[in-house]
Amino acid sequence: MAEALKGLKRTHMCGELRENHVGQNVVLMGWVQKRRDFGGLIFTDLRDRTGIVQVVFGEEINKEAFIKAQELRSEYVIAVIGEVVLREAPNPNLPTGMIEVKGKELRILSESETPPIYIKENLDASEAIRLKYRYLDLRRPDLQRNIIIRHKAAKVVRDFMDENGFLEIETPMLTKSTPEGARDYLVPSRNFPGKFYALPQSPQIFKQLLMVSGFDRYFQIVRCFRDEDLRANRQPEFTQIDIEMSFVDIDDVIDLNERLMKRLFKEILNIDIPTPFPRITYKEAMERYGSDKPDIRFGLELVDISDEVKNSNFKVFKDTVANGGTVRGINAKGCAEFSRKEIDKLEELVKTYGAKGLAWIALKEGEIKSPIAKFLSEEELNAIKNKMQAETGDLLLIVADKPKTVFAALGALRLELGRKLELIGPNNKEFKFLWVTEFPLLEYDEEEGRYVAMHHPFTSPMDEDIELLETNPEKVRAKAYDMVLNGEEIGGGSIRIHDTKLQERMFKALGLSMEKAYEKFGFLLEAFKFGPPPHGGLAFGFDRIVMFLTGTDNIKDVIAFPKNQNAACPLTNAPSEVDEKQLDELGITVIEKE
Amino acid sequence: MAEALKGLKRTHMCGELRENHVGQNVVLMGWVQKRRDFGGLIFTDLRDRTGIVQVVFGEEINKEAFIKAQELRSEYVIAVIGEVVLREAPNPNLPTGMIEVKGKELRILSESETPPIYIKENLDASEAIRLKYRYLDLRRPDLQRNIIIRHKAAKVVRDFMDENGFLEIETPMLTKSTPEGARDYLVPSRNFPGKFYALPQSPQIFKQLLMVSGFDRYFQIVRCFRDEDLRANRQPEFTQIDIEMSFVDIDDVIDLNERLMKRLFKEILNIDIPTPFPRITYKEAMERYGSDKPDIRFGLELVDISDEVKNSNFKVFKDTVANGGTVRGINAKGCAEFSRKEIDKLEELVKTYGAKGLAWIALKEGEIKSPIAKFLSEEELNAIKNKMQAETGDLLLIVADKPKTVFAALGALRLELGRKLELIGPNNKEFKFLWVTEFPLLEYDEEEGRYVAMHHPFTSPMDEDIELLETNPEKVRAKAYDMVLNGEEIGGGSIRIHDTKLQERMFKALGLSMEKAYEKFGFLLEAFKFGPPPHGGLAFGFDRIVMFLTGTDNIKDVIAFPKNQNAACPLTNAPSEVDEKQLDELGITVIEKE
Repeated sequence: MAEALKGLKRTHMCGELRENHVGQNVVLMGWVQKRRDFGGLIFTDLRDRTGIVQVVFGEEINKEAFIKAQELRSEYVIAVIGEVVLREAPNPNLPTGMIEVKGKELRILSESETPPIYIKENLDASEAIRLKYRYLDLRRPDLQRNIIIRHKAAKVVRDFMDENGFLEIETPMLTKSTPEGARDYLVPSRNFPGKFYALPQSPQIFKQLLMVSGFDRYFQIVRCFRDEDLRANRQPEFTQIDIEMSFVDIDDVIDLNERLMKRLFKEILNIDIPTPFPRITYKEAMERYGSDKPDIRFGLELVDISDEVKNSNFKVFKDTVANGGTVRGINAKGCAEFSRKEIDKLEELVKTYGAKGLAWIALKEGEIKSPIAKFLSEEELNAIKNKMQAETGDLLLIVADKPKTVFAALGALRLELGRKLELIGPNNKEFKFLWVTEFPLLEYDEEEGRYVAMHHPFTSPMDEDIELLETNPEKVRAKAYDMVLNGEEIGGGSIRIHDTKLQERMFKALGLSMEKAYEKFGFLLEAFKFGPPPHGGLAFGFDRIVMFLTGTDNIKDVIAFPKNQNAACPLTNAPSEVDEKQLDELGITVIEKE
Repeated sequence: MAEALKGLKRTHMCGELRENHVGQNVVLMGWVQKRRDFGGLIFTDLRDRTGIVQVVFGEEINKEAFIKAQELRSEYVIAVIGEVVLREAPNPNLPTGMIEVKGKELRILSESETPPIYIKENLDASEAIRLKYRYLDLRRPDLQRNIIIRHKAAKVVRDFMDENGFLEIETPMLTKSTPEGARDYLVPSRNFPGKFYALPQSPQIFKQLLMVSGFDRYFQIVRCFRDEDLRANRQPEFTQIDIEMSFVDIDDVIDLNERLMKRLFKEILNIDIPTPFPRITYKEAMERYGSDKPDIRFGLELVDISDEVKNSNFKVFKDTVANGGTVRGINAKGCAEFSRKEIDKLEELVKTYGAKGLAWIALKEGEIKSPIAKFLSEEELNAIKNKMQAETGDLLLIVADKPKTVFAALGALRLELGRKLELIGPNNKEFKFLWVTEFPLLEYDEEEGRYVAMHHPFTSPMDEDIELLETNPEKVRAKAYDMVLNGEEIGGGSIRIHDTKLQERMFKALGLSMEKAYEKFGFLLEAFKFGPPPHGGLAFGFDRIVMFLTGTDNIKDVIAFPKNQNAACPLTNAPSEVDEKQLDELGITVIEKE
C-alpha cells in the first residue's frame, strides 16, 4: 500500500552526497536499484536522476525501518530519513562511494512489479519492447544523460541566440499545404469540411515573412514534420534550430553559426572547436571526396587520372574519357595486401552506386598485382602512380564512369575504407566541421523534365552568376551553404532572393508560370512587394546535433518518445482508430479496403 | 531596381543613436517610415526594430545620395552611410531626437508599393485586412513590442526553470486521440490508412510518464491544440508552460510557481509581486465572489442573507430558502441613485445567467426605494442592512435561486459593477494574484448522467477526503489549484494520483469500467505498475500571461501569426484544398455535400 509524503521534504539528491555530508541527517527519495541482504543488514542502492547512493537498514539502526525494508524490491519508490556515514568498504566506482546512509525511517511511496526490461546502462533489449515500455527505458542512465544533454544544448542555443539579439518567435503548426518538398502531414478542418491544414515541414516561409516584418533576427527551436518513408535515423517529427537574419550576406550567417557551434561544444563537452571552419565549394567537395558532405577526419581523397589514361589501351578507361566521362581513383595507403575477397566486397559496394566495376592495382613488394595492369604501358602506370602518390604497399582503386556515378561510387568507397581502416569509428572522438558552399542553384529533374531548386525556390543565385539564369541555368551557383560535421550535414541554409524581379526569373528557370508560382507561394510574393530586406538564414537538425553531443548513432536515443520505423508509437498505440462521429464532423470518411 | 549589400555591414541600429555618437560615421539599414521635403533638404524617418532615427539628405551633404533620395517612398528598404550630428531642432518625443544622420551614401535595397495599412501604433484597420497583411501589421511598433516581450518572457521562464533544476523535454505532437476532454485535431496516417494521430491538447500523460521515468522536474513551453468553436481570445493552437515535479505536495508546486511569476513580472515589467499569494478555497471563492476565478482588485463581495429572509412575507425569498436555495446580495456602495434604466440593465444581465429576477433596495437619503420593501418587516430590513453593512446611499442587489445560479448571476453582476464603477478597467494597472484551492474532485454531468472529473481523472483527492469517494463523491475535494490573476485563470494543476488502487477507485467514481479506463488510458495505468513517484504539476496559458505583460486584451496581439474566428489564416489561406492523390495515400476521402 502506497504511503503518502505527508509534508516530508527531500533534502538532498542521491548522487550529490559526499564525505562532507557525513554526520548530517538527510531525506532522500528515489527508486530501489537493487537490494542485497548481507550480514544481517539490508543494503539498497537508491537511484534518482543524479545517481546512486547506498542506504543500509539494520535492526540496530532502526528496527521498524529494517522490518519494512524487507519488503523492498527493485523499482520500489521510497523515502528514507537517515544519517550519512563513512563507508567501511568504499566503492571507488561510484561518485558517492565513500559514504552510505543509515536508514532510520523508511516510507514505501509506491511498489513495482518486476519490470520487463533491466534498468541499466547499454541494455540490449529489443527496440520494440524498449519503445513499448519507454517510461522504463527512460529510467536507464544513458537515456537520462542524453535527455539532460538535450535540455542543456537547447538552453545554450537559446542563451547564445538571445545574447546575439535574436528573438524566438513561434510560428503556426496548423498551416498551408505546400506541394513543393516532401509529403505533408494533413489535418482536416472542421470549420471548412473538405479542406486541410498541413503541419509545417519547416517554418521557411514564416521566417522570411518575419524578416519582411522587420524583426531583423529570428530563431526558433521548433518541431517540423515530414510524412516520408523512414530511413534509419529519420523521425516523422523532428526538431529544427531555425534561424533567419536581415541585412546580411553569407559571411554573417556563417560567422554567427560557427560561434554557436563553438559555444555549444564548449559548454556541453568542454571541447574547443577551432573557428573559422574550413570552407570548400560543392565542386571541390565532389572532386576531392565524392560527396557534398565530406568526412574530413581522414584523407583517402579522390584523384582524377582521366588525363593519364585517356589514350591507354584499356578500352573502358579510354572510352569513358572519350564519351565525356571521368576516371578517378583512391589510393588506399598500405592496403596492397587486401585479399581478393576484400577487394570483391569493395567492388560490390561501388556497383550499388551504379559503377560498372572497380579497377585495382596492388603495389606489392617487388610486384604489381592488377587485372588491368596488362593493358597499361609502363609510362601510363608510372603516371598513375605519380598522380596518386602511390608507393609500395598501396592499393589503387579506380572507377571510370559518368562523373556523377564516379563521385557517388568513390565517395561511398572512401567512407567504407575509412571505417575498414578504423580512421573513423567509435574510437575516433574528433569533431571536424566544415562548410560546403556554392551549391548549384538548380538541378535537372529527369522525371519532371525540368529544373528544380536544389535548396528551395527562394535561394539567391550568386551575384556574378545571375546572368546565367536564362542561358546556362545548370552553371548558376547559389548563395547556399551546408554545415557538415564528420560527414553528416547538420545544417543548411542560404541567402534568399529579396528582389521580386529576380524571384520571377527564378520561377521561370524552374518552369513555373507566375500564375502557378502565385498559387503556391502567393502570400510570400505578395509580401515581397512591400519592402523585403536582404535576408538569409540556416536551419540545423537539432536531434542530429544532440546525437553528436551524446555520442549516439541512433536518433531514438535523443528523443524522449520517438516513433518506430512505421511512424507508430508502441507506447500509446498511436495512430489509432477514431469515432465515426469525429470523422463526420470533419466531412471525411475512411475508404474501405476491398 | 534593388541594390545589393555587396559587403556593406550595418554598424548601428536606428533606435540606439544618441548624442555620444555625434561625429561618428554610421551605417544604418531599415525602412523609410516617412519622407518630408523641406528647405531644399529631404528628411526621412528611418525605422528598424529598435526605433526611428532622422536621416537628412541634401545637395550639399552628398549630391548623388540626395538625387537618389528623391525616389524614396514609405516602406522602401535602404542602407545609409552617414555622420551623426546634433539636430538643430531636437525632437523630445523621440529617444533619438537629439541627433540626426547626414546621409552621405544611399542604397535602395528594395522598393515598396503603397502598403494597404498604415505602419503606426494603435491602428484601427479591420481585423480581416490586418490578418491578411500580417507581415505589415507586424511592422507596427505595438505588435513589435508585444512579440519582443513574448520572447523575453519565454526566456525568463526558461532561465528560471533551468536554475531550479527543471529539464525542458519535448513531447510528441503526433500522438493518440483521447476521447476525454475537448475535441482533438486529427492527423490521418499514411502507413496505417484509416487510423489517425491526434495533436495534443496538452502533454498531460507524457509529463506524468516522464515522472515515472524519474526525470524529477520537467517543464516545456509547448504548443497545444483544441478544435473547439472559438470564443473571443481562444486560438485553435495555443502555447502552454507545462510543469511537473516529483516527490512534492501542493505547497511545493505553489511556492515554485509564485517565484516564477514574481521573477517574470520583475524582469519584464519591473514590478514587485508580493508573495505568498493569497489562497482561498473554491467554496470561499464562490461564496464571496460568485466565481472560481475571482477578481480581487475590488470588493463588492456577495453576502448571504438567507437566514435574514427565510421567514419573510416575500414569497420568492421564503420559498427559495425552503427549497434548499439561497438568497444573496451585493451591496453596491454609493449606487442608490442608479436610474431605473440602469437597474433594469443589471437585471437583464443576471437573467442571462439563469436568475429569475433581481431584487433591489435603494437606501436613498431619507427614504428607501424598493419594489420588495413592502414585503419585508422593518426588523427584516434592518437585519439585511446590518448583514450587508449598508448605509445611506447604497444600493442592495439581491438574487434568490439555487446556489449555482445565484453564484453565477451575482458573480457576473459583481464584475459588471466593478467595470461600471471603474474599480477595474484600462486605467487599473494592478496585478492581483491568488490561488483557488480545494476544488471539488468531481462534478455531476446531467447530460452524461454520471460524475465527471472537474480537472482530469488523474487528479488526487485530498488525503482526508479519500474515504468519501464511494459514499459522498460530490463532497470530495481535490488537490487541485488554479492561479488567478485579475479575475482570469492563468494556470491550473494538481497533485496526481500515483497509487494504482486509488486510481481504480477514481475510475469507479467516474462510472468508468476498468476495461474502458484501460482502453482510454491503458499505457499510463500500465506505467503506474512500475513505481510511480508522488508527483504534481501545473500548466499556464502562456499567451494569456503575455497578454497581461503587454497590456492587451486581444490574444491575436501576442501571437505572430494567429488564426481568425473560423480557425482560418487569411494570410496563407489555410486550411485549403489538397490533391486527391494526397488523400488517396491516406485512405480517406472527402464526403461530397448534397
